[in-house]
Amino acid sequence: MFTQNRVKAAPVRVSQSHLRAESLRAIITNSGNANACTGPTGMQDAKNMAKETSKLLELRQREVGVCSTGVIGLPMPMMRIEQKYEELVAGLGPKNGNDVARSILTSDTHEKEFAISFELHGKRVRIGGCAKGAGMINPNMATMLCFITTDANIGKGCLKEAIENSVENTFNRITIDGDTSTNDSVIVLANGAAENKTIRRGTKECRDFSHALEFVMNKLAKAIVRDGERVTKFVTLEVKSARNASDAKKVAQAVANSSLVKSSWNGEDPNWGRIIHAVGYSGASIREEFVDIYYESKAACKGGLQAKTNPEVLRNIVSKPDFKITIDLGIGKANHRIYSSDLSPEYVDFNRSEYAYWKQAKKDGLV
Amino acid sequence: MFTQNRVKAAPVRVSQSHLRAESLRAIITNSGNANACTGPTGMQDAKNMAKETSKLLELRQREVGVCSTGVIGLPMPMMRIEQKYEELVAGLGPKNGNDVARSILTSDTHEKEFAISFELHGKRVRIGGCAKGAGMINPNMATMLCFITTDANIGKGCLKEAIENSVENTFNRITIDGDTSTNDSVIVLANGAAENKTIRRGTKECRDFSHALEFVMNKLAKAIVRDGERVTKFVTLEVKSARNASDAKKVAQAVANSSLVKSSWNGEDPNWGRIIHAVGYSGASIREEFVDIYYESKAACKGGLQAKTNPEVLRNIVSKPDFKITIDLGIGKANHRIYSSDLSPEYVDFNRSEYAYWKQAKKDGLV
Repeated sequence: MFTQNRVKAAPVRVSQSHLRAESLRAIITNSGNANACTGPTGMQDAKNMAKETSKLLELRQREVGVCSTGVIGLPMPMMRIEQKYEELVAGLGPKNGNDVARSILTSDTHEKEFAISFELHGKRVRIGGCAKGAGMINPNMATMLCFITTDANIGKGCLKEAIENSVENTFNRITIDGDTSTNDSVIVLANGAAENKTIRRGTKECRDFSHALEFVMNKLAKAIVRDGERVTKFVTLEVKSARNASDAKKVAQAVANSSLVKSSWNGEDPNWGRIIHAVGYSGASIREEFVDIYYESKAACKGGLQAKTNPEVLRNIVSKPDFKITIDLGIGKANHRIYSSDLSPEYVDFNRSEYAYWKQAKKDGLV
Repeated sequence: MFTQNRVKAAPVRVSQSHLRAESLRAIITNSGNANACTGPTGMQDAKNMAKETSKLLELRQREVGVCSTGVIGLPMPMMRIEQKYEELVAGLGPKNGNDVARSILTSDTHEKEFAISFELHGKRVRIGGCAKGAGMINPNMATMLCFITTDANIGKGCLKEAIENSVENTFNRITIDGDTSTNDSVIVLANGAAENKTIRRGTKECRDFSHALEFVMNKLAKAIVRDGERVTKFVTLEVKSARNASDAKKVAQAVANSSLVKSSWNGEDPNWGRIIHAVGYSGASIREEFVDIYYESKAACKGGLQAKTNPEVLRNIVSKPDFKITIDLGIGKANHRIYSSDLSPEYVDFNRSEYAYWKQAKKDGLV
């Protein structure tokens, strides 16, 4: 699955076109430059990355996916990449997954990896993967990348459905400000080495696989939020009893993306007024007098009014690094959950300027 | 015109209901407490504010509008207001407009006032007003209030149309993050003292009046952005050649509200990559290869690619306190303009906590 941004980086276009023709068997990835807004040259660069990788791995060019993450609008420093193909291929091995997890980091502070194994049709099946930081959270090099491998023997129909459902319930639930990057990519490779009976769409095994995949993606998605740039809070935002699913999502996104709400989380301020204010402008159908807001199990607002809970109790909850806020709209049955973070002065400070990078690029003759 | 937030403060509800029955002849306003999410008590408080004011001014209660701005979710400290009605009414006078401009300030650093006069039907007509800071910009007490008076003799039809058009082209163009407050109000009072022939809808005079009103509102709207909390940049964002008006607006709002774009303005970084990235996720129909981006008259991006302009030249433009960015989508004829600001670390720091206010409220027995 790839970004829904209408400005798509060259590697995204190349990977998409390769996937239409073949199943992928390898991925070549880089960090530092997104190869986005780079025109025909960028497309050629991304194709060359796939081509050179495929030669060394004895694959067809279309069996190689390409993923880049980094600054938008600068040409790829291909010289640096071209020097490395042989070393990269020589370094492949069953114990070297951590190299990949590390190579894709930008402003992330640590690798994000997770793996599980489980039984299917009497065979042990493994799903493992790594990810790097999301749009708004790690915005200096704004992109979310996730690579997952599994040895499951699985049909394309089931795998596609499992990926779509899992991404919807995980990576699409960590939207922070709607800053969908030009490069977001989630790629799952399955090689069948577990020798289980092929998992077909619509079966119990397909559902089991899908749950396992979602479990892995959920761990990685949450890890991305926790490792967000200058983030101090991990906030689980639960919207309940909305009129419909679309409204529940609108409310969750409006609250999770409000600079005012996020600033107050940073300040450990149980400011439910800012939350209900974002609920009101979310575009969802709401009735102010039915809205309840809870910090963990403690009511801050009941029926649109200040609840009786002592603000100090709420304050203690928001002071923790990890807490849950529930917004009960009280008018329907639809729910939506989002994982979000605070907005810190340090975050803005960190993202004020990439100009140093541009100056370097100029020095390097890239612009 | 009042906020479109579905959570509406009590004074907004009261003013709206009064306007349905009568024309307003006075406004009672306070800052510090928004009287929002305060339930039946808040409604009674707002009604009482109109009632007490109307008594002293010998008006009907429904001829008095009510506007509040401040913290959401705390009861109104009515004691403090009740002590002041007589002093307020005694202080009314033709030279005391500045008192109003000052009284509504919250985190604004100075009063925002503007007035013009012009001839209509051989009579001199005046339009003057004041405003206070907007949602996202002055969010500690998040609200935009604007009061305008005119001595024009004007029909309701023309006045209504003039207000709607003017607000759409001014206060609705300074959206910073879509943080529509619960209390936003723009009220225009006309008393006919200029003794011009009544201005009727559809006439040249109505258009002239409308342009004059828009001119005043535009000055006030821009002043709000310039006085925004910890704002260092005033950015005019011009979107051109969109497929339709709705798309032009979507692009302008996505760019103006992107934390990443706004952080880069604060850092004086000519980062057009972040701008085109926001264009791409705006939801508007765009073609990456037709997008041009200009800083003043200098191209940063042509046809979706890095333009030849020396980045130092762009850097010098973004380093100014006031600059214009034009995004030419190249696929249609629709335009949209927004006035925006940067996002600073100091802004987030300023908005981290209102908890001190809560503690004070508790001390005062208000919660």
